[in-house]
Amino acid sequence: MRRGPTVEELVAGVRARDRMLLARAITLLESTRPADEREAQAVLAALASERGNVRRVGISGAPGVGKSTFVEALGLHLVEDLGLRLAVLAVDPSSPVTGGSILGDKARMHRLAQHERAFVRPSPSAATLGGVARRTRECMALLEAFGCDVILVETVGVGQSEVAVADLVDFFLLLVQPGAGDELQGIKKGVVELADGFAVTKADGDLEAAAERAARQLSAALGVLGRPADRPAPFVRTTAALAGRGVGEVWEAVEAQIAEQEAQGALAERRRDQLERWLWERVDEELRTAFREHPAVKAALGGLVEEVRGGRRPPTAAALDLLGRFGVQPGKG
Amino acid sequence: MRRGPTVEELVAGVRARDRMLLARAITLLESTRPADEREAQAVLAALASERGNVRRVGISGAPGVGKSTFVEALGLHLVEDLGLRLAVLAVDPSSPVTGGSILGDKARMHRLAQHERAFVRPSPSAATLGGVARRTRECMALLEAFGCDVILVETVGVGQSEVAVADLVDFFLLLVQPGAGDELQGIKKGVVELADGFAVTKADGDLEAAAERAARQLSAALGVLGRPADRPAPFVRTTAALAGRGVGEVWEAVEAQIAEQEAQGALAERRRDQLERWLWERVDEELRTAFREHPAVKAALGGLVEEVRGGRRPPTAAALDLLGRFGVQPGKG
Repeated sequence: MRRGPTVEELVAGVRARDRMLLARAITLLESTRPADEREAQAVLAALASERGNVRRVGISGAPGVGKSTFVEALGLHLVEDLGLRLAVLAVDPSSPVTGGSILGDKARMHRLAQHERAFVRPSPSAATLGGVARRTRECMALLEAFGCDVILVETVGVGQSEVAVADLVDFFLLLVQPGAGDELQGIKKGVVELADGFAVTKADGDLEAAAERAARQLSAALGVLGRPADRPAPFVRTTAALAGRGVGEVWEAVEAQIAEQEAQGALAERRRDQLERWLWERVDEELRTAFREHPAVKAALGGLVEEVRGGRRPPTAAALDLLGRFGVQPGKG
Repeated sequence: MRRGPTVEELVAGVRARDRMLLARAITLLESTRPADEREAQAVLAALASERGNVRRVGISGAPGVGKSTFVEALGLHLVEDLGLRLAVLAVDPSSPVTGGSILGDKARMHRLAQHERAFVRPSPSAATLGGVARRTRECMALLEAFGCDVILVETVGVGQSEVAVADLVDFFLLLVQPGAGDELQGIKKGVVELADGFAVTKADGDLEAAAERAARQLSAALGVLGRPADRPAPFVRTTAALAGRGVGEVWEAVEAQIAEQEAQGALAERRRDQLERWLWERVDEELRTAFREHPAVKAALGGLVEEVRGGRRPPTAAALDLLGRFGVQPGKG
């Protein structure tokens, strides 16, 4: 087997904008071998101080909402019209090793993937959403050091993946479309409040009037339901990505809102908070894993959970039992 | 010092509906002494299989929305008109030892607190929301064994307390009121999707028309924004609790929805899931505490967090450093 590039070669390669070495560094990040993890962390540490002027935008929407069409149209606008250096990543916890539903097949973004200023990467394969999100986050750090101007992070939006993506980015864009009765489709529990902006898709042809109505209804609903005081009101725009309409306007609105956050210092604070949460998420995840894989905990777990669910043992008693097996003596908080 | 009642006396007292022994058992639960905790857990374990036919309802709303007026009117309706046995608890993480803003002063619910079928208890004092929620949950288990028909859990709604309360109950009711421009007040980030029903308060006098408009707008907004498929659509009702109007209707709607969940088996499943989450929350909380209080972790923590926030060290590297100090060897998930 040929020797892979060294940590120093990878660091120098990313700095020199060598796409092949960037891809090698990302592959290293995605590896599950402990030796690879150590090398990947060394690369990240060496590049930690490399700061770009990157804008990181999360994009989500239910299947069928036209997400891939929108992302390719937006991506081409960014690289061709605006001359920006772009990366497109995916967070898709539903996708196993083979790649799965989004970006697994680069052919879906054929034109964009071939562009010299675009870097398209499918979702890393990993068993857990936490694992996918972590690798995506570390991959974004490499892409920032590489000098990307924009990183788009796409997610299919299954369960908690929007929450994970919103915590990776500067701006979270939600794609929605009008359903049969003008109600909005593609909005799931807990996702509305994550969105910094909305794009109503497929606003042309037969659907144009419905999309405009849906956009007005959504604006009204957002007004009724209020907004945290520390964030600007989300915008609502209509787009017809296939016809190339509205995509540039959505990007202008995204840029304007990021610039507003930056001017207020809110962007820098959001990023610092994200870094600290990343630290704690990793710690908590590893603690949970170590706990659940501890032999004495494992041996008792199934039976205790059933007793708790059946109401035969109080949850606190079961928790104290398990914690004792793990060797933690709880205080009373 | 006089000897307190034994575990056996407390268990027998709760079963015999002795209010004084119930109060003693709750005080034991709220104690921070390890010996008291052991006794409290023994009481809970002995009563774990006592099942009542209790309905547990969470009530939240921003300050000024008329929550205490509503809770007292609803409580009096339940004990006086319906003859039910009622407990009112509070989850108020903002309230330190002295009691604080809700229920700390029982005088606020003077008439209800004096009723023989009502049991009103202020928020337990505890440093963390987790601690308050846990004690409230355990208190609810005692109240169920005591034979309460209804437990109302009130929260002021600061940050995450609605999430905690929604996970303690069968039904989560959100109180809102129209603001100056008919927009709704008392709705905060992430709370709308927790609500199983809404009551628009103060719908009388000058505010009646505004309240009716607000209720219609809220219904429309909820329709636009959709709903998880596995839960019934939330209701929206107007109330004028001071004038005694609408409170009984809200309760009928709450009961109807709980009955519907029960008929579908969804209520039993919701309760089993809550019990299991309670187990894991306690485990995770104790693991986090043990980690943060570990001397070697504590010594390095402040400096590492600053390096991470400043972008000088990657979060994963800092996490691995801290985990090593705690004695956990992470795998790569």
